Amino acid sequence: MNWIKQELAQRGTLINQALENYLQTEEIYPPVIHQAMRYSVFAGGKRLRPILVLAAAEVVSNRPHRALPAAVALEFIHTYSLIHDDLPAMDNDDLRRGRPTCHKVYGEAVAILAGDALLTQAFEVLSDTAFPDGPESTIVLQVIREIAQAAGTLGMIGGQVVDLASEGQQIDLPTLTYIHQHKTGALIRAAVRSGALLGGASADELLALTGYAEAFGLAFQIADDILDVVGNEAVLGKPVGSDARNEKSTFPNLFGLERSQEMARETAEKAITCLARFGDRARFLRALTQYVLERDS
Amino acid sequence: MNWIKQELAQRGTLINQALENYLQTEEIYPPVIHQAMRYSVFAGGKRLRPILVLAAAEVVSNRPHRALPAAVALEFIHTYSLIHDDLPAMDNDDLRRGRPTCHKVYGEAVAILAGDALLTQAFEVLSDTAFPDGPESTIVLQVIREIAQAAGTLGMIGGQVVDLASEGQQIDLPTLTYIHQHKTGALIRAAVRSGALLGGASADELLALTGYAEAFGLAFQIADDILDVVGNEAVLGKPVGSDARNEKSTFPNLFGLERSQEMARETAEKAITCLARFGDRARFLRALTQYVLERDS
Repeated sequence: MNWIKQELAQRGTLINQALENYLQTEEIYPPVIHQAMRYSVFAGGKRLRPILVLAAAEVVSNRPHRALPAAVALEFIHTYSLIHDDLPAMDNDDLRRGRPTCHKVYGEAVAILAGDALLTQAFEVLSDTAFPDGPESTIVLQVIREIAQAAGTLGMIGGQVVDLASEGQQIDLPTLTYIHQHKTGALIRAAVRSGALLGGASADELLALTGYAEAFGLAFQIADDILDVVGNEAVLGKPVGSDARNEKSTFPNLFGLERSQEMARETAEKAITCLARFGDRARFLRALTQYVLERDS
Repeated sequence: MNWIKQELAQRGTLINQALENYLQTEEIYPPVIHQAMRYSVFAGGKRLRPILVLAAAEVVSNRPHRALPAAVALEFIHTYSLIHDDLPAMDNDDLRRGRPTCHKVYGEAVAILAGDALLTQAFEVLSDTAFPDGPESTIVLQVIREIAQAAGTLGMIGGQVVDLASEGQQIDLPTLTYIHQHKTGALIRAAVRSGALLGGASADELLALTGYAEAFGLAFQIADDILDVVGNEAVLGKPVGSDARNEKSTFPNLFGLERSQEMARETAEKAITCLARFGDRARFLRALTQYVLERDS
């Protein structure tokens, strides 16, 4: 547990530096939009998606830095989705990770545009062909295509649409599964696949890592739902039980806490099974999967 | 005038077909997001940006269809920017081209997501490598990069930020020029350059077409400002003089109507001068430039 925490902190620092390199500074005209983008990007996220990109690349390659632009792009897309989700017209959240949300600080108009800008910037970063020792252009195009699909209406946006439409309603398991697979699962899957593709994975390796990503994404989401029930408010930075109060559909709501914890464990084991062929190279991904189950925030 | 109108109608039909090919149908789950996207894309736009993409490609190449994905992407980005600009937190417009705006029909949450989805879809379309007889991957990556930059905070979004911040204020010429060059100019420039790049333009040809695009964009914007003063409400589909009532800064407000008309003519002539080297191949672009000055909507 100590080793993985240190690893996560080190990798987080590397990723924060890369995010810094790809963002405009606060003085660049017009300043307010760059301030709002930086405010949300540096709001203390776990950097899970970029960590997955780089970890998948290192499983198949000795040049995981090739995947750094994709890691940055995925975090930009994740951050844009949080800014837009928090808007009054959507979830209407005043707090995110214990701090006022983007629109509470910069107003709705700038928050909408900051989200738009991070989504746009993600694709600018992805198309950075000046990256030293970069991967082949055809691979980069495939990665752009997969990330756009994962973020679009058949992926993340589709999940958000169904989630919004389901609010205040008792939903069934297929709908809950759809929401999770699309709202968070699609981008996690794209993160792992992007890293694998940019690292030069073979077709078989890509298939194994895709299986890992799908199971990992589900385990992560169940664990997140559980944390909302049992977590500590101060550690989480948001009110515990907020999902239940908003009548959001969650695994504990549908299956109870104990069965949900069992499901999270089983799904994480399934994820780890997909990594067997990679031996010691997948040590970090295995530990990360365990960590996601055991974390308290 | 008759010839160019016929050409524009024919090209518009071709572009509408391409837009149709790259959009999900209304039944695809979740339906409401695809309905909202189609509602705004097929709201009767002039298709100026895709027309410019294809026209620039045909000036330098006999295979302008190579630029079709970029044409579609630019129209998606233009449409997303209109949906978000119309939101209550931004310009708060109820009508666009004589029809209720996206958020009036589908609600704010779906309108925000429909804009996000069109921006995302633009990059999916751009990375469509399965396009028959397509251009080289490195060129496609350059085009993605230029379009992302033109749509981002140093381009279109920057222009929108400054436009919003200037509302209700008397602004000076440098600020007006900044807004125009960024809010509309950047995407028009990217449209022409994308077409040129995908058509295989030489460095000299690209330079000439970039000069054309910059002058054309300015002439288009001045003509648009003039139309707002002298245009016919029924033809335009929005209340005449709405810019003046909103205290938006325009060329007629700063320079008067007559001088603005002179400036539009001079700038259009400058644009046409940039096309000299292309001879008869640029016949359509020349006629389009004239048409933009003389149109009544």
